Amino acid sequence: MRGCLSQPLKFSMDMKSNYSDFIIIGGVAAGPKTAATLARRMPNVKITLFEKGEHISYGACGLPYFASGDINNFAELTQTSYGLPRSPEFFKKSKGFEVITGTEVIAINRATKTVIARNVKTGESFEHTYGKLIFATGALPNTPLFPIPSSDRVRSFTRPDDAIHFRTLAERGQIGTVLIIGGGFIGCELAETCGGMWGIETTLMEKENQLLPYVLDSEMSAIIERELERKKIGVLTNTCIKEIKLNNDGDLLGILSNGKSIAADYVFLCLGVHPNASLARETGLKIGETGGIVVNGKMQTSDTDIYAGGDCVELYHQTTKQKIYMPMGSLANRHGWIIAENLSGHEIEFPGVLGAFLVKIFDLNIGAVGLSQLAAQRAGFKTRAIWGSFADKPDYYPESNSMTLKMIYSPDDNKLLGLQAIGNGDIFRRIDVFSSFLQNHGLINDLLSLEHGYAPPYAEALDPLHHLASMALAQERGMVIHSPDYKPNNETIILDVREKAESEAEPYPVGANNHIINIPLNELTEHLNKLDYSKKTLVICKRGPRAYQAALILKNAGFENLSILGGGMQALI
Amino acid sequence: MRGCLSQPLKFSMDMKSNYSDFIIIGGVAAGPKTAATLARRMPNVKITLFEKGEHISYGACGLPYFASGDINNFAELTQTSYGLPRSPEFFKKSKGFEVITGTEVIAINRATKTVIARNVKTGESFEHTYGKLIFATGALPNTPLFPIPSSDRVRSFTRPDDAIHFRTLAERGQIGTVLIIGGGFIGCELAETCGGMWGIETTLMEKENQLLPYVLDSEMSAIIERELERKKIGVLTNTCIKEIKLNNDGDLLGILSNGKSIAADYVFLCLGVHPNASLARETGLKIGETGGIVVNGKMQTSDTDIYAGGDCVELYHQTTKQKIYMPMGSLANRHGWIIAENLSGHEIEFPGVLGAFLVKIFDLNIGAVGLSQLAAQRAGFKTRAIWGSFADKPDYYPESNSMTLKMIYSPDDNKLLGLQAIGNGDIFRRIDVFSSFLQNHGLINDLLSLEHGYAPPYAEALDPLHHLASMALAQERGMVIHSPDYKPNNETIILDVREKAESEAEPYPVGANNHIINIPLNELTEHLNKLDYSKKTLVICKRGPRAYQAALILKNAGFENLSILGGGMQALI
Repeated sequence: MRGCLSQPLKFSMDMKSNYSDFIIIGGVAAGPKTAATLARRMPNVKITLFEKGEHISYGACGLPYFASGDINNFAELTQTSYGLPRSPEFFKKSKGFEVITGTEVIAINRATKTVIARNVKTGESFEHTYGKLIFATGALPNTPLFPIPSSDRVRSFTRPDDAIHFRTLAERGQIGTVLIIGGGFIGCELAETCGGMWGIETTLMEKENQLLPYVLDSEMSAIIERELERKKIGVLTNTCIKEIKLNNDGDLLGILSNGKSIAADYVFLCLGVHPNASLARETGLKIGETGGIVVNGKMQTSDTDIYAGGDCVELYHQTTKQKIYMPMGSLANRHGWIIAENLSGHEIEFPGVLGAFLVKIFDLNIGAVGLSQLAAQRAGFKTRAIWGSFADKPDYYPESNSMTLKMIYSPDDNKLLGLQAIGNGDIFRRIDVFSSFLQNHGLINDLLSLEHGYAPPYAEALDPLHHLASMALAQERGMVIHSPDYKPNNETIILDVREKAESEAEPYPVGANNHIINIPLNELTEHLNKLDYSKKTLVICKRGPRAYQAALILKNAGFENLSILGGGMQALI
Repeated sequence: MRGCLSQPLKFSMDMKSNYSDFIIIGGVAAGPKTAATLARRMPNVKITLFEKGEHISYGACGLPYFASGDINNFAELTQTSYGLPRSPEFFKKSKGFEVITGTEVIAINRATKTVIARNVKTGESFEHTYGKLIFATGALPNTPLFPIPSSDRVRSFTRPDDAIHFRTLAERGQIGTVLIIGGGFIGCELAETCGGMWGIETTLMEKENQLLPYVLDSEMSAIIERELERKKIGVLTNTCIKEIKLNNDGDLLGILSNGKSIAADYVFLCLGVHPNASLARETGLKIGETGGIVVNGKMQTSDTDIYAGGDCVELYHQTTKQKIYMPMGSLANRHGWIIAENLSGHEIEFPGVLGAFLVKIFDLNIGAVGLSQLAAQRAGFKTRAIWGSFADKPDYYPESNSMTLKMIYSPDDNKLLGLQAIGNGDIFRRIDVFSSFLQNHGLINDLLSLEHGYAPPYAEALDPLHHLASMALAQERGMVIHSPDYKPNNETIILDVREKAESEAEPYPVGANNHIINIPLNELTEHLNKLDYSKKTLVICKRGPRAYQAALILKNAGFENLSILGGGMQALI
């Protein structure tokens, strides 16, 4: 019904004449960025931004950190770095465009180039003409496919109210247990917010067999699951919810598909989001297979006078060339900038997405760019992967931290496809650099030519990306490297080449029937007789290099059925 | 005399037959890396590495952090991450190659493919044949051009002994004052070591008009000078030393070219290094204009059976295509790898250097890649620069840190030339990403297409590189942006558009005759009458964006003689 008018319009010639030229619908990221950039490029045009809610240009991605208390006041998310509130007056005076909050655009007439906007509180409607119209309507949380009770303690986490409501109750100590349904970015961030910052007993449920499905491969997200378990978060993967209901005491109860139930004082529905494109659809704009508004490289919709950007549009993936929906604040900002550039006469194209993301979950820094191995396989790529664990600076330097990386590439043409990185070390440089290589259609050898910034307080003399590239070449020359989640069969000898103390402190999770031998690398040549040439041998160490070296020694000694564990024990912590 | 034999050789058939195939001269970075990689690729060849000193493969770049006490024991620099000492036995057993320490190669006979090595202690010499020979002889400290006394308290800082000697005296409280001559990487790192960690009264002298000359532009290194001064380090630029002498009390005295003198208990000569290429020269290998051994992309010298890598070779710059000497541990490691790959039949070329570096000086992270503006101009490039200051994550997120960036590009073709970054924030991602773009011959617009990893704990939604690119485009469209060290003349009105409290807390260092006005951006439109259309106006703010916005408001109001201060007040802290 949003495209239809449910009441007669009150026309006001005054109001009508106040708005012309550029109308922007939506005020979180892409909208204000478009408006501010347009105002700079074309200071004499009128730009009006309509936002249904009361907040404009707030740090939406910061909501979990307000909910956690890391960010003290909600105002911090809505003000400038120098303390001014981002009010309509601020945007008018400092940025040069009009902001009308509490006002929803309910219909668009493309023939007459007018929008009809309605004041959310008064219900009053106005008509406004536009020269160019920009959709920045964002995303809406997916509706649960299971019954939920009417309760403000069962809610998604996408709007300021969600964060404020949770924190208010948490501060009062009124939340003892939380159930989070959905192990995507927001679900995982909220697990830290609830369990870590507020000490709430927290259960994180995910219907897929891993957290952060689609964007990480399962052996990598297993590192996150182990971290959450260490932090006392209950993690249930492969688990569906059948129903959420209020029991007789007024407590919430999640009924699982396996018949079990979980009581909770608060339930977060983190079921993902979908493009808020219903108005665009009603307006007759072309909508893509992902549900997002179809745009070209200039972020122009099927109507040349209408542009769209941010979480409401369908994008395409630079590597797969397939359509994709990727709601990310960073992309929304870039869209806004590109729309404004094109509207002000500078032709700039959005190149499509690569899928870069970062997320913090407790002590882990997590990031990826490009395709996961599963996503690459589904997109039809022949793939091979390599894993490595690394220190982010020399071990001798204080505060050296670790990380485990997985690189995916195409063995046919050595083309880089994706990188995943998890650890408490500096994964950021590697994600961004790899993104830049993907943007430039990089090959494995290009990584070897990377000249990274080096100094002991910040880096190793060789970057992890150099090592991964080198290992990928070794793999292509015949070295067999297994995924960290590889399960050796009972006939396999597991050769642990770490020092004895390391091996004892952090034993390999060997199966009951596996045969494990610890021979430190440095003693290997003199103890080859302890091993059996005829047996399948899996070599393990802490991060990977010693196992690689040991495998070469064994290979040279005539062992044939050899493999090493990618990423070493570090990838199993 | 190093190429000649000063005593009869003692031939030993046994020893001779023990060494064949690959001989590597030098054991810090490129040498061991070549040897270890070769041993992996070709396990059946004999590899022998000769090192004159007693330590192999130690973390040479970590020496300042051992001197400071950050790294507790020297052994940490010489052992593996899992605690094994990097002894000849370790290399033999774990890495598969021979290491002969305390042995100097004193002559090479290319006709017979033999080297003559001499035991440093006993003076005994041996002859060894080689199939392929690898020079990894490193660098030697430059000799001072001024007189110095014979004292072990006047020394360079390039070898383990230098660090051990200093720290031993510092721990005993025997060093009250230090004079560091030379404001390059090592000089600046030692300033922190001496003044910061040991609380020693420290003076850092540099003959050029700035610290870190050649690699940073002066307005950027001025940020470092201010940091050092805050940390009570005496910084003397534009200052030469005439002589260092021992006075009658046995104290050291530095006599400056201006006639003044500085007393010190310890003097570090950080005068840079030069290629240790005398043996190569005597051997008849081609030596380049920089004094380094000439190598091709495969790191092969003018003798096809001899390779060279690390601090002893001459390199070429990817952007200028000019010869350059760049002694860096990270490059040395890559050289070692490339030599081994080529020797084992895999053709891989070193692409030349881009000049990436990082250095930590007190609380500042400092880095650059590509050409400084001065270096680019000297290389014949038409250049333009843009400055910007940024938070490394949203200001609302706790622990957000700042940084100031300078980007250099060619205005004719929008080609990226260089990036410099200084601050306590995460400069590393930006240096590495920019390096990758330089490697791919990137243009300004390519930065706009960068998909960086974003999440509030780690980044802003738009990366500083996006902003710099956008500002460069604005500059090319006519916005006048000055260097942070720009000095407005007396007729210029300085318009400070920060909030009043900011302006008072951190006033712009205005000259006596400058006219400064503070009108916060948000109040600018209503106070335009306080300004004079006819006057030259320089707009300033904290980081740059508000000044940019204000300049656009003024321009739209008819002001013509407008400019903004690049990097804002942040670049002047």
